[in-house]
Amino acid sequence: MSLVIVGTVAFDALETPFGKTDKIVGGAATFAGLAASYLYDHVKVISVIGEDFGENIEILKSHAIDVEGVEIVKGGKTFFWSGKYHNDMNSRDTLITELNVLADFDPKIPASYQDCEYLLLGNLTPQVQIQTLERLKKQPKLVVLDTMNFWMDVALDDLKAVLKKIDVLTINDAEARQLSGEYSLVKAAAKILQMGPKYLIIKKGEHGALLFGEGQVFSAPALPLADVFDPTGAGDAFAGGFVGYLAKVKSINFNNMKNAIIYGSALASFCVEEFGTQKLQQLSQDDIQDRIRKFIALAKFEISE
Amino acid sequence: MSLVIVGTVAFDALETPFGKTDKIVGGAATFAGLAASYLYDHVKVISVIGEDFGENIEILKSHAIDVEGVEIVKGGKTFFWSGKYHNDMNSRDTLITELNVLADFDPKIPASYQDCEYLLLGNLTPQVQIQTLERLKKQPKLVVLDTMNFWMDVALDDLKAVLKKIDVLTINDAEARQLSGEYSLVKAAAKILQMGPKYLIIKKGEHGALLFGEGQVFSAPALPLADVFDPTGAGDAFAGGFVGYLAKVKSINFNNMKNAIIYGSALASFCVEEFGTQKLQQLSQDDIQDRIRKFIALAKFEISE
Repeated sequence: MSLVIVGTVAFDALETPFGKTDKIVGGAATFAGLAASYLYDHVKVISVIGEDFGENIEILKSHAIDVEGVEIVKGGKTFFWSGKYHNDMNSRDTLITELNVLADFDPKIPASYQDCEYLLLGNLTPQVQIQTLERLKKQPKLVVLDTMNFWMDVALDDLKAVLKKIDVLTINDAEARQLSGEYSLVKAAAKILQMGPKYLIIKKGEHGALLFGEGQVFSAPALPLADVFDPTGAGDAFAGGFVGYLAKVKSINFNNMKNAIIYGSALASFCVEEFGTQKLQQLSQDDIQDRIRKFIALAKFEISE
Repeated sequence: MSLVIVGTVAFDALETPFGKTDKIVGGAATFAGLAASYLYDHVKVISVIGEDFGENIEILKSHAIDVEGVEIVKGGKTFFWSGKYHNDMNSRDTLITELNVLADFDPKIPASYQDCEYLLLGNLTPQVQIQTLERLKKQPKLVVLDTMNFWMDVALDDLKAVLKKIDVLTINDAEARQLSGEYSLVKAAAKILQMGPKYLIIKKGEHGALLFGEGQVFSAPALPLADVFDPTGAGDAFAGGFVGYLAKVKSINFNNMKNAIIYGSALASFCVEEFGTQKLQQLSQDDIQDRIRKFIALAKFEISE
């Protein structure tokens, strides 16, 4: 029984209104894995890195994350992304993208990962996402897929093929509009749910998230923060917290999905409070429960009729 | 005991992606008054119209709204606004603004309005808002003020003066950022609450609303709608529903404020479903309770620790 996360393990260099970093550890699987590790014990990562990643892999290992599926390419260089956030923190410019070893990523699934019950397909080419699914001998109980507008632009057919094989899709509101061709998110969700996924999560950043499925809708708030220090990885931490919670509670239904979104939102809210993975490396269970209580207080109202 | 609403009673001509109207009835006090009338029996409006408004005043009177304070200027023309919404419905161009009788609006308070306990100062010049307050012999139990970026641009000092005299300010997120000079809404709220209001409501349109006050925060969802037909008046219907609910329950505290925001949001969600005041004219109490139940289902989650 395990939760397998496929995604990038990378170096990032970031510039935000609050400061600048040299190369620090990033990558979707890193953020998602760290977030999930607080909720579930059997987290396993599939990724590819270069030899230059070196001791940084300890960041995952120290959280008891299985890295047998993280291939180290001899003499290779790790995927590197550099970006600069604008003052509003909602938009950013990519300064550098060096795919390096990611260019030829051929996801290898160790035998010990074949017990995968929960699968998070992080934002990667739809081709790699499909390959991963095909290489698992047993269809997982739950497949969550994250993607982005880039793949809608350059690999829409592949993306549509993988959408047929998954349970939950997480995208942002602009991407939901692009994928469906509908401006109304209600109409967009209806169309996207016909493409395959049973559930759709629309991430709206500082405005929270919407969950559609089983003919129901849930609106999750985002915690208003005094400072968003670095938004990098927030979506990945959200996805990791989301699937980590479901792996923990084991039962998949709309109510558990709602709670999973709150846990994902809580982990994401920590993620943005410091640069890179810094904050996600050092949480306690008390920190997380305190944050969950803040979300409960934030959203709760009681109307007696 | 009454709820007094000061604001425009107007004609609008609208163009949205769904269609076009000739001159129809609009105005902040109209939308707010109609919304409030479903929740509270003693709604009274202060405004100014021209003789051309004619029988249209029946729209308010038929909802048992007191219009003694609506001055009719002989030979005058009613305030007229014409606008065109863009495809995303979140932005619009003003095509025509004819102030007409509004240009010399000198708010007159009938003696029968001096029982005002709840006062909604709709979006008008801060000067008119202050005059209204000064002409009430007794400070109301609750003063809610709506304003907009325009007054921050041209009458900031007057606006700051009126902010010192009110209890609740409702503005949108861009306006909260402009008024405070802070991008973070948490920091913006802290600054604005130091300007006078005890409570701040930040309206975020399709993303819901935030309430700040008493050291607490509440995030209210917006109901995801398949079609937003015409956003005109949504903010006014929100404010009217909000203050109408508080007038009904009588007690002012953070929990009632939260519920008031849900009622305001429910009324606003009806408002946008048809052109102008059409939908707000024909609601039943069952319609409203059904909508409230939708908001409860939309936001509710239960996490057991």
